[in-house]
Amino acid sequence: MDEDIKYLKETLRLAKKGLSWTNPNPMVGAVIVKDGQIIGQGYHRRAGLPHAEIEALNSVKRSPRGATLYVNLEPCSHYGKTPPCTDAIITSGVKRVVCATKDPNPKVNGKGLATLKKACIETSVGILENEARLLNRTFFTFHEKKRPFVALKFAASLDGKLATSTGNSKWITNEKARIYARGLRSKYQAVVVGINTILKDNPHLGARIKGKKDPLRVVLGSKTQIPKHSQILRDPNILITSTDNIPDLLSMLKQKGIISILVEGGGKTLGKFVDCQIIDEVYAFHAPILLGGKTAVSIEGNGAESISKAIYLKNLSFKKFGDNILTIGYV
Amino acid sequence: MDEDIKYLKETLRLAKKGLSWTNPNPMVGAVIVKDGQIIGQGYHRRAGLPHAEIEALNSVKRSPRGATLYVNLEPCSHYGKTPPCTDAIITSGVKRVVCATKDPNPKVNGKGLATLKKACIETSVGILENEARLLNRTFFTFHEKKRPFVALKFAASLDGKLATSTGNSKWITNEKARIYARGLRSKYQAVVVGINTILKDNPHLGARIKGKKDPLRVVLGSKTQIPKHSQILRDPNILITSTDNIPDLLSMLKQKGIISILVEGGGKTLGKFVDCQIIDEVYAFHAPILLGGKTAVSIEGNGAESISKAIYLKNLSFKKFGDNILTIGYV
Repeated sequence: MDEDIKYLKETLRLAKKGLSWTNPNPMVGAVIVKDGQIIGQGYHRRAGLPHAEIEALNSVKRSPRGATLYVNLEPCSHYGKTPPCTDAIITSGVKRVVCATKDPNPKVNGKGLATLKKACIETSVGILENEARLLNRTFFTFHEKKRPFVALKFAASLDGKLATSTGNSKWITNEKARIYARGLRSKYQAVVVGINTILKDNPHLGARIKGKKDPLRVVLGSKTQIPKHSQILRDPNILITSTDNIPDLLSMLKQKGIISILVEGGGKTLGKFVDCQIIDEVYAFHAPILLGGKTAVSIEGNGAESISKAIYLKNLSFKKFGDNILTIGYV
Repeated sequence: MDEDIKYLKETLRLAKKGLSWTNPNPMVGAVIVKDGQIIGQGYHRRAGLPHAEIEALNSVKRSPRGATLYVNLEPCSHYGKTPPCTDAIITSGVKRVVCATKDPNPKVNGKGLATLKKACIETSVGILENEARLLNRTFFTFHEKKRPFVALKFAASLDGKLATSTGNSKWITNEKARIYARGLRSKYQAVVVGINTILKDNPHLGARIKGKKDPLRVVLGSKTQIPKHSQILRDPNILITSTDNIPDLLSMLKQKGIISILVEGGGKTLGKFVDCQIIDEVYAFHAPILLGGKTAVSIEGNGAESISKAIYLKNLSFKKFGDNILTIGYV
């Protein structure tokens, strides 16, 4: 059991190396252990490239016959962009497969494990399940709720203002907090902003981290409203949609295979998500300032009618950036 | 030096026992040390009762001749409700007086120390000065800035809403946070709320802690607007004023000898203080919820025009109440 935990932790560590590139696939890592030694390992580098199990099997220097394969997600049993991993595992002679969770993708979802069992391979599932689900929370939500995972991000004063009454928002949070916030973009497949944010801030919306993929930029508004030299028009990795309806937006994004979005504002756009209560995760950055202002910008929309109808965050964690605080929570 | 720090810490500990009762006087504690032993101690219990130094001198079981007197504030040298402490100290034969800070009250402000020196008593001032000023920050501000110390308190969602668009605010924060918030009232001589808060919430505004004094309740509004059976009308410890101008309000309160106020809301009243930038301390309670709502209640007023004109909090500290967070900062 302790061994299993140790090697599954290693799979999670390897899996994270694929961050931002595996979408719409999950991040997966695999290690092959024989006689108490890791004889092979690998991770899913990018959608279209081999799965982690195959990378690990290809990396062995000794025969994997009789070894244990650890992987944070159930091996696939279907033909996608690559052939089924279960075939390669069975052929390899591995005698035991330990995975942290089942694969929620209806094309797999237990079929991978069943295939392995049928081939007399010992299987185990469930150890470090929470950690594994958290790592690929966007992928699990996409398949279980049939819509993209929705994360909201905002930077506010202690009194919740996203900008002053004159529209000034540069900068509420400090540089370290802003760099971290930018880095979040690489965790999601798309960022979503409203047209006002484009007009007021002319944002770049890229992660701007070497080795990390920029997310798709989704703008809620009409193409004609966007000034020609806006930074977001710098390349074709952009989607402009005039839909005002969040469920419609999400089903359109789902059709396009977008498994996760980071909604960055402004107040109107964030308010739409709060109103329709489709939120999975929140990143709330706070600077230790008070701005005040009845007409200052905050999260808008109709708002919850009563406190009991608020969006309530659980599993909170906090990060400090100097005197700025980031609260991360899950709905 | 280490000895001095040790005994001055003890004076601060004793001083705190007078919390809420000493106003408009400061909280003061005193210990008398002879041959490495505390031979007497005392604290200022309540305005009108003896000062800490006198309490300590009265408590000695051995002669204080040749002893050191520790006190967190410079001994007074003037006749107030009680005679000057310096007289009693000189008479006692104490040979050294160690105090953490000078007394900012213009009636004292160095004169106490000068009187002691003239009587050939060795004096020291400045050790633990920051701690001593923090403890009596309301008293120092009152005398140095010639106005009451202003603390703001609010309870908000992460997006800064104090109430939903329908006016619902019960309860944003959890019970532990609310009990702590109520306890804050005993630290200030008055609480200030706007008329809307009275009409919407019918608040009690008392500390409701056994052994702690209720603050004066100050309502910004006209008497005729307050319903007869409002809880705040339960006793005469109330001041109703129709002034809308914060500097005017503060000079009126100063005239009445009010050295500190806790502004509890609602959004309009808090906004007035933010707009005139007269704030010394902020208690911002946040619950891990999002409420949204363009017409929800938040800190109003005109608001800062730009981020650089925001009220910026320093010396931050944080307290957790379950999943609620209190941010305390000084301006």
